[in-house]
Amino acid sequence: MQAGERLERIRVVLVRTSHPGNIGAAARAMKTMGLSRLYLVSPLAFPDPVAEARASGATDVLDNAVVVDTLEQALEGTVYSAALTARRREWAAPAAYVRDAVPELVARVQEGEVALVFGAETSGLTNDEVLRCTVPVTIPANPGYSSLNLGAAVQLLCYECRIAAVDAPPMEEAPRVLATFDEVEGFHRHLDDAMVRSGFFKPDNPGRLHARLRRLFGRIRLEREEVNILRGILSALERKS
Amino acid sequence: MQAGERLERIRVVLVRTSHPGNIGAAARAMKTMGLSRLYLVSPLAFPDPVAEARASGATDVLDNAVVVDTLEQALEGTVYSAALTARRREWAAPAAYVRDAVPELVARVQEGEVALVFGAETSGLTNDEVLRCTVPVTIPANPGYSSLNLGAAVQLLCYECRIAAVDAPPMEEAPRVLATFDEVEGFHRHLDDAMVRSGFFKPDNPGRLHARLRRLFGRIRLEREEVNILRGILSALERKS
Repeated sequence: MQAGERLERIRVVLVRTSHPGNIGAAARAMKTMGLSRLYLVSPLAFPDPVAEARASGATDVLDNAVVVDTLEQALEGTVYSAALTARRREWAAPAAYVRDAVPELVARVQEGEVALVFGAETSGLTNDEVLRCTVPVTIPANPGYSSLNLGAAVQLLCYECRIAAVDAPPMEEAPRVLATFDEVEGFHRHLDDAMVRSGFFKPDNPGRLHARLRRLFGRIRLEREEVNILRGILSALERKS
Repeated sequence: MQAGERLERIRVVLVRTSHPGNIGAAARAMKTMGLSRLYLVSPLAFPDPVAEARASGATDVLDNAVVVDTLEQALEGTVYSAALTARRREWAAPAAYVRDAVPELVARVQEGEVALVFGAETSGLTNDEVLRCTVPVTIPANPGYSSLNLGAAVQLLCYECRIAAVDAPPMEEAPRVLATFDEVEGFHRHLDDAMVRSGFFKPDNPGRLHARLRRLFGRIRLEREEVNILRGILSALERKS
């Protein structure tokens, strides 16, 4: 697979962006690095002339942007996703630095589409949104002032993707068939229902069970076959009880 | 030297910036990565409320910015400088990719201040300005659309500086004393005068002689003592002729 093809398989997902100028800046940043697949989750204002102006010569990226209501919709069909997060979240896996994490993300394009996920300018991503992505990543920054502009953060990540795409090793002979985002979500829903019905999980006292299970299954990057097996086990156990 | 001290010795020089918003974005980008020394060469509009707004929490960087008329003034006292250039210039040394070039720039802070130099949004740096810097550098980009926003380019370079500053080896025992920018310029003026007076160089038919000499001496990173020796030789030769 050529570098250009790899980059075409990377989605940039912007969640609840407030300023259309940042959407335009993100489009321009993407195009300079050879990315083109922009997903917008509930943008405050889009389309918008300010976005067009800031996109400069990259309005084609805006024209082809996919606007959806939820992060789940934006991640549908992806096999790997990285959530950009600035602050440390105590319950989450420690975020990897983008330079260390991006090569794996780019390598995963051999198995399907992947995504870089960015939260809103001020509030970032919710805990639940970070957990729905495969890995949390962070940009090394001045601890006294770590607030990168959204467009600048997109530029940095796309730049790392471009370098990783050019450096990436050739495709493996028989790539693993990873489960897509929606297949993994289906498994989590199944597991959740089973836990509730069995009395193991009490929805009115959730604690950190969901977070821990998502960390666990996020780490092992489930294959499609494995999801089928796990769901088969769940179904079998439920029939028995 | 700590990473923070290294970063404090890096100047960001913006030449003839047209849009004050980009100056603000650059200030913010610098501060997120721990840089603070901003130099503005003939900005079109500064200070300006648009720059303040885009700087977000980094208005201190704007408040401390040094505004000068020429690139020479901005580089005064520096021992090393990197000119960001997008296009290939036939007469110049080939530009290095920023990831490969920035570690040397950051290592040079052990010998004095260094600078990252960015041209105007549309026209970039002039050939003469690129030649006055120690090395040309470039950002790997989509050949079909390589036009990064100025603030985004500053963000990328400062990010590379931060990573290099953290990774930089400890200070050498006896660092070389590099000639400063103004000492090297003094040498070039001296050489130029000597060439004209000797009849070797004809100002009405300049050709590429200046460019070739600047490439040559740029590559060897003159030490102060070496500049003194070369100028001594020039003076001696001129007295003799």
